[in-house]
Amino acid sequence: MFDELAERLRAVPTATAKQLLREMGVDRTVMKGLRAMTSGRRVAGTARTLHYLPYREDAAPPQTGLNRHLIDSIGSGEIVVIDAGGNDEGAVLGDMLAARAQSCGAAGVVADGVIRDVDGIRDLGLAVWAKGTHPDSNVRALLAWEIDVAVQCGGVLVLPGDYVLADSDAAMVVPPHLAEAMIGKAEEMAIEDEFSQELLRHGSGLNEAYPIPSARREEYERFARPKRRHAGS
Amino acid sequence: MFDELAERLRAVPTATAKQLLREMGVDRTVMKGLRAMTSGRRVAGTARTLHYLPYREDAAPPQTGLNRHLIDSIGSGEIVVIDAGGNDEGAVLGDMLAARAQSCGAAGVVADGVIRDVDGIRDLGLAVWAKGTHPDSNVRALLAWEIDVAVQCGGVLVLPGDYVLADSDAAMVVPPHLAEAMIGKAEEMAIEDEFSQELLRHGSGLNEAYPIPSARREEYERFARPKRRHAGS
Amino acid sequence: MFDELAERLRAVPTATAKQLLREMGVDRTVMKGLRAMTSGRRVAGTARTLHYLPYREDAAPPQTGLNRHLIDSIGSGEIVVIDAGGNDEGAVLGDMLAARAQSCGAAGVVADGVIRDVDGIRDLGLAVWAKGTHPDSNVRALLAWEIDVAVQCGGVLVLPGDYVLADSDAAMVVPPHLAEAMIGKAEEMAIEDEFSQELLRHGSGLNEAYPIPSARREEYERFARPKRRHAGS
Amino acid sequence: MFDELAERLRAVPTATAKQLLREMGVDRTVMKGLRAMTSGRRVAGTARTLHYLPYREDAAPPQTGLNRHLIDSIGSGEIVVIDAGGNDEGAVLGDMLAARAQSCGAAGVVADGVIRDVDGIRDLGLAVWAKGTHPDSNVRALLAWEIDVAVQCGGVLVLPGDYVLADSDAAMVVPPHLAEAMIGKAEEMAIEDEFSQELLRHGSGLNEAYPIPSARREEYERFARPKRRHAGS
Amino acid sequence: MFDELAERLRAVPTATAKQLLREMGVDRTVMKGLRAMTSGRRVAGTARTLHYLPYREDAAPPQTGLNRHLIDSIGSGEIVVIDAGGNDEGAVLGDMLAARAQSCGAAGVVADGVIRDVDGIRDLGLAVWAKGTHPDSNVRALLAWEIDVAVQCGGVLVLPGDYVLADSDAAMVVPPHLAEAMIGKAEEMAIEDEFSQELLRHGSGLNEAYPIPSARREEYERFARPKRRHAGS
Amino acid sequence: MFDELAERLRAVPTATAKQLLREMGVDRTVMKGLRAMTSGRRVAGTARTLHYLPYREDAAPPQTGLNRHLIDSIGSGEIVVIDAGGNDEGAVLGDMLAARAQSCGAAGVVADGVIRDVDGIRDLGLAVWAKGTHPDSNVRALLAWEIDVAVQCGGVLVLPGDYVLADSDAAMVVPPHLAEAMIGKAEEMAIEDEFSQELLRHGSGLNEAYPIPSARREEYERFARPKRRHAGS
Repeated sequence: MFDELAERLRAVPTATAKQLLREMGVDRTVMKGLRAMTSGRRVAGTARTLHYLPYREDAAPPQTGLNRHLIDSIGSGEIVVIDAGGNDEGAVLGDMLAARAQSCGAAGVVADGVIRDVDGIRDLGLAVWAKGTHPDSNVRALLAWEIDVAVQCGGVLVLPGDYVLADSDAAMVVPPHLAEAMIGKAEEMAIEDEFSQELLRHGSGLNEAYPIPSARREEYERFARPKRRHAGS
Repeated sequence: MFDELAERLRAVPTATAKQLLREMGVDRTVMKGLRAMTSGRRVAGTARTLHYLPYREDAAPPQTGLNRHLIDSIGSGEIVVIDAGGNDEGAVLGDMLAARAQSCGAAGVVADGVIRDVDGIRDLGLAVWAKGTHPDSNVRALLAWEIDVAVQCGGVLVLPGDYVLADSDAAMVVPPHLAEAMIGKAEEMAIEDEFSQELLRHGSGLNEAYPIPSARREEYERFARPKRRHAGS
Repeated sequence: MFDELAERLRAVPTATAKQLLREMGVDRTVMKGLRAMTSGRRVAGTARTLHYLPYREDAAPPQTGLNRHLIDSIGSGEIVVIDAGGNDEGAVLGDMLAARAQSCGAAGVVADGVIRDVDGIRDLGLAVWAKGTHPDSNVRALLAWEIDVAVQCGGVLVLPGDYVLADSDAAMVVPPHLAEAMIGKAEEMAIEDEFSQELLRHGSGLNEAYPIPSARREEYERFARPKRRHAGS
Repeated sequence: MFDELAERLRAVPTATAKQLLREMGVDRTVMKGLRAMTSGRRVAGTARTLHYLPYREDAAPPQTGLNRHLIDSIGSGEIVVIDAGGNDEGAVLGDMLAARAQSCGAAGVVADGVIRDVDGIRDLGLAVWAKGTHPDSNVRALLAWEIDVAVQCGGVLVLPGDYVLADSDAAMVVPPHLAEAMIGKAEEMAIEDEFSQELLRHGSGLNEAYPIPSARREEYERFARPKRRHAGS
Repeated sequence: MFDELAERLRAVPTATAKQLLREMGVDRTVMKGLRAMTSGRRVAGTARTLHYLPYREDAAPPQTGLNRHLIDSIGSGEIVVIDAGGNDEGAVLGDMLAARAQSCGAAGVVADGVIRDVDGIRDLGLAVWAKGTHPDSNVRALLAWEIDVAVQCGGVLVLPGDYVLADSDAAMVVPPHLAEAMIGKAEEMAIEDEFSQELLRHGSGLNEAYPIPSARREEYERFARPKRRHAGS
Repeated sequence: MFDELAERLRAVPTATAKQLLREMGVDRTVMKGLRAMTSGRRVAGTARTLHYLPYREDAAPPQTGLNRHLIDSIGSGEIVVIDAGGNDEGAVLGDMLAARAQSCGAAGVVADGVIRDVDGIRDLGLAVWAKGTHPDSNVRALLAWEIDVAVQCGGVLVLPGDYVLADSDAAMVVPPHLAEAMIGKAEEMAIEDEFSQELLRHGSGLNEAYPIPSARREEYERFARPKRRHAGS
């Protein structure tokens, strides 16, 4: 059931999800300063979080190797969300951790920090959103402090278990308790948008096509019915 | 006649146009902070302008729907120039307005703001220069205040009817009263550049090839003559 | 011998070189604010430097045309390193100088400034790292002041004769006296990484695969032996 | 009556006004990127607006000298609001215009641009909020395009006639139709804050002092009654 | 004993502490992007930490009112260190919390965020370092998530109990296990600097005065002896 | 004679000098990103330059101690101009070098970098323009590479011997061959401005007062005559 929601979510553009969530009362969902480092194809999954703090020569995190521990424990369809506080001096992802994440079935990585081996990661096929690249590891820049806790990423609160959705426009969070309702609206909206696009392609003006005017609602219903989920059920 | 100028302008690199206009006395022509969001192929056309002001909950523009009104009235070969004051919190272009602009024959969109549905817009084939992407609409970020007025875009003054030229290097304005003279020079310069490139490819040093030294002017004339416009007339 | 080192260096990712040089005591090697403007394929070569100072209407450099002079004298496998102090108002490279650099056998150009004719340069096949694009020449922005002197580029000291290494992750300097030792380590590391990647691809956890645990050292030796340089000698 | 409102508004900290207006439904009121260039003492007044567009060598505004015209027509208690689009290359205010504004009784100047003669302006006693200083005039940077129109300033919509309030914390807009209600609440809040401060000064914990707990409401009433406006009427 | 160290630390310029700590092996100590918002007089004390995460309409921290709880529990000589992730849209300190902190004997506040009521806070006499001002509260911008945990502030790791030192140059962390040794060196260095300053004031060249040349060591000893701590004991 | 020019230059606001130099054909004179770190009182003098390059662990400048060498050799009325390439990680001026510069009679320091001991420097009375403060020395950040050479500072070319002028509005360069002519115009302009200010103070409109209208030229002449230099000669 969970999987099915993530599957359906992957069909929802961030442009649609952002707007619907705002209309549903949750506005602070889009991470700032991140960009698609690999293909930009859309991914959706549940958040597994990693909280880095700045490196200091005389300090150590409560437990060592937490970043590796998190990646090793990633489940299929999960998305790694990394709070590096915007640090751009040491990579939070390289081709080794990326290979392991990929082999664990990770749906993607979203990081408020930088990555390295970007070509290698692209070749692996892992989808990554980050601030940019830096060729060094983070051993002198960051300390992996906690995992599976509430973090910030790109100025957005991400809780473990939140849905994360990312495509060429942005990476964003989707609160799980709103996901199903939002996705339902988004699926109808996708059909409406397809209908509007068709009208525009044939020369309609904006007011005749988008949003669909009431005079065309009947025509739209005929267009939409076979496209709806479980249409045949 | 106008169309023909835009057609010829589309063959002029911004690198050539910027330099020639500066030499002709107009220096403030290149928009800052914008980048090619789609293909980067060169476009040229006349400016249709849209002036956004920041959203405020208690205020409304003199007339509603002006952004849609502008897009609906775009003529073939026109370029939409959007002054959003650099706002990056709400998209000034999505796939619906893009589809309509495309169907109206717009040559492109140049925006001092952000866009959404960037993949969809790329698929439509519309050429867009902007500051980046944000997945939300602008209904809580901007108010479409005026159209077809003088605006700023990327720190450059754009008047309705100005030519706009954009490619992978930049988006810029071309004052219409200078366009024909500039384009004439640019066309000769293109042949000179082709000649210089040929010399460089065959091992000439820079001083032997670019700019073309007087000793090679005669040779150049033979090279250039068949390439000039109306060569046969 | 020199050529051979550069050749071997070209096989070293910046991610490996940066980390190894830090461990060897040299940390300030990665240029900030530059990005691959063309393909991002890796290049390596020896630095030829060019120092620009800001344009001032009443001043002239000790000698004119030094930028052209430098490009004309580029030798095969050299990399042009340009200190433009981060200026973004006039291009330090266009398609003419790029064509000449290419014809001289330049391995690439790394510039703390902007370029123009980016599409043309990409077509030439020259590899360039820079801050971005601006369509104007630099005649009203910069003065080519000195060549073949110590410069800064992206906040890093570059001496004439330093190695420069650049790929999709970054552009960086490699001190020549450390190059051979670093490359030797990097070559072994490449085989280790290949081995680790294979293990990860087959489902190993990070601690079983990276770094290679002692229990797997023997297996690794068998894997590595035929891959080492001069393996057959 | 209007004057009286501005007078009362001048006693309201921006910290209070911003929060109350948000609670009353208007959130986009604080200008970003501006700072107090002179004393930072609080000012309040009605907005007179000036819209600059970028300078272009071949263009002229519909009418010349509009910036001077505006300053010459400033009435007592008005605040000049300048939309320079964030331009930092030419001053929108110097000591001459400042002297005239001061002599006309201007309450202050708020500019999304830079100023010059900052020491002279400080000596005049005019209160100014701006982005910083630049010693040049704006004759090669900006064109005074329109006055008394809707503008943006620091990312906020300002309409002619809006109240503007500015102090050491920020410069902001106050919609006139909300001003009286907001000020009423603010005046009570000022007394509450005074009461809370007194409690804190005497060692109360935050929960005992701010906001005032119901157990202390009676005590507060005795404290507040003589301080309220028209207390004696 | 602890108090005495903080007291001695308050006499150490950040310029001295930063340099000595680097020489003692701890380099990442200076917070970036913060400035003295009030007097800039030097403060020193032990860190009490507060970790904010971004506001999201559908989320709540594990416990409410943690920011107030922290301030209420501040002990004499402690410094409040606030990790707001650089957020500049809602104040993490206003005059109420400042008054309570002051009344609890706080030595100062250091915040990776913005404050409001800056004039009022200055009047209270509380020393504050922050990123700037914003007049709104943070109720729609931040959630007080945890207290007395490891945080980042200005890109520096701060652990509860660390010393914090701040003056006009910067705010920084001082690891407690290095404090006594560092302060000892700093106290001698202060006398050396005083001696050097005297020499420079009387016309010595830098090499004769700073650092103190061996030929002047004896003279320095006579100068220093009466100034050293416990000189008379 | 030289001294006298610097003396007269010190009476010219940067606002006047910048505008006059632009009108005389030299426009690139104002340093960007610098601010008055001490009093902001106006200084003028001839430039002594220092060129820093970024620190690298394996490199050394041609000669060591050049920054100290320069400061030790500063002559009365000279201004130290430091090109640190904008580096903000190590101070290029502290209270020791400042004390020596002050004792040598330096007119001020202008640095494209950061300083430390800002309170101590302010107490010494030395006037400094810089990018900000950092408490560390620059021994791990910069290498003093050359002195008395052409440098950039804040994006402006500064040649040894240029005049430098700095006040609360900005720090700028004044080409020496234009200084006398510019100063002459500035001195007349100062009298005109004083006259205009007087008119404005008495209620004149801008067009009646600034610039001085021809109808008032005679009155101005009477006002100006006794104020002109050498008035009595």
